[in-house]
Amino acid sequence: MTFSASIVTLFPDAFPGALGLSHIGRALSEGRWSLETIDLRAFGQGPHKQVDDTPAGGGPGMVIRADVAAAAIDSIRRNGRPLLYPSPRGRPFTQALARDWSHGDGLIVFCGRFEGLDERAIDARGMLEVSVGDVVLAGGEIAAMLILEAVLRLRPGVLGNSDSLSEESFVAGLLEQPHYTRPRVFEDRPIPEVLLSGDHARIEAWRKAERERITRARRPDLLPNPKPAPPES
Amino acid sequence: MTFSASIVTLFPDAFPGALGLSHIGRALSEGRWSLETIDLRAFGQGPHKQVDDTPAGGGPGMVIRADVAAAAIDSIRRNGRPLLYPSPRGRPFTQALARDWSHGDGLIVFCGRFEGLDERAIDARGMLEVSVGDVVLAGGEIAAMLILEAVLRLRPGVLGNSDSLSEESFVAGLLEQPHYTRPRVFEDRPIPEVLLSGDHARIEAWRKAERERITRARRPDLLPNPKPAPPES
Repeated sequence: MTFSASIVTLFPDAFPGALGLSHIGRALSEGRWSLETIDLRAFGQGPHKQVDDTPAGGGPGMVIRADVAAAAIDSIRRNGRPLLYPSPRGRPFTQALARDWSHGDGLIVFCGRFEGLDERAIDARGMLEVSVGDVVLAGGEIAAMLILEAVLRLRPGVLGNSDSLSEESFVAGLLEQPHYTRPRVFEDRPIPEVLLSGDHARIEAWRKAERERITRARRPDLLPNPKPAPPES
Repeated sequence: MTFSASIVTLFPDAFPGALGLSHIGRALSEGRWSLETIDLRAFGQGPHKQVDDTPAGGGPGMVIRADVAAAAIDSIRRNGRPLLYPSPRGRPFTQALARDWSHGDGLIVFCGRFEGLDERAIDARGMLEVSVGDVVLAGGEIAAMLILEAVLRLRPGVLGNSDSLSEESFVAGLLEQPHYTRPRVFEDRPIPEVLLSGDHARIEAWRKAERERITRARRPDLLPNPKPAPPES
């Protein structure tokens, strides 16, 4: 079963864009995954194919109409695929979600623009709001690419070396250790001696300790048993 | 002062990509910001312009050489701009960082590929590792686009309606309220009555309560005074 991505967007020409690069781009041309874009504009209303209108209750910006969004979505064969709406209000996108979705048949992504999408489209079509960080973007297109890249690289046969998937950030719930390669000394900075020792047990112990040290220093929230915050006095 | 973006990448053709869309793309063609790509391959070694080598200590994948990365970076006029390296090990990218950087002269982004970049290049060139989520990507290109989109839309004159910047997610530290627009009823779902009341004080009170409700339900970690976790017994 290939993985099918369907993207609803006002900018269908933006795809595949950066998803056409390197291994993932090669996998697309080899048919290991498929990409379909649905032009939201084609479902717009009136002679100007308008997709948005002013916000109920007033305020700046424009809101994508629920009926236009729903018509675009209903034109897609869903086949049980998750329907995502990238939004800062969504569930944070994580490697665990990427892994789950990489085992499925594909994803549908609705790319917002303007102030956002009428809430009733989100509810009525069972969209899953997903956040790619606590930031506001101009639209959902780059978020859709990010989600698809994280998912697609986990599909069998997409990356060359599946070993590298098992050793990276988050697989063990920790951040990655530092990497080094030739030259042995760069601007007076040597490669750590242990990595040149040829002693595989010592190297593995060092890498594990580095993963723990870096995670503790940078992202203690990722550690399995964070200390509870002290009660305020 | 225009905003200058410099991107070091093995895929210079991927840019501007989705950064060429809509308001941000228009601002690029109007010269409100500039984009320069630096082809990392041009700084590679030997007849094949190799940029990577096997990891010290063994293991899968390839690591970008520190000397190659440094040479590419040193070819750029930094002008005090932050030098970012998108990586899951980095500081989480937030709207506060986007706002800070939107007030500066620009950004330099080094896009990784393969297993990663030799740690000594990160240290020796003072790169700021930035994470666009707890996920692993195939490379830094989409992350660079995401960061630049979040920053550039905050620059004066890039978006049409600057009002909409002041009311959105994270400006008040909260997620956005739901949006609605015509039609008044969509599939038996009416627009909430308060939004049609014309009573601006009631509308504002409803929106504020919705922002608080949604943030509490979905992302209590964003609230200003989260209750400390109970001590383990």
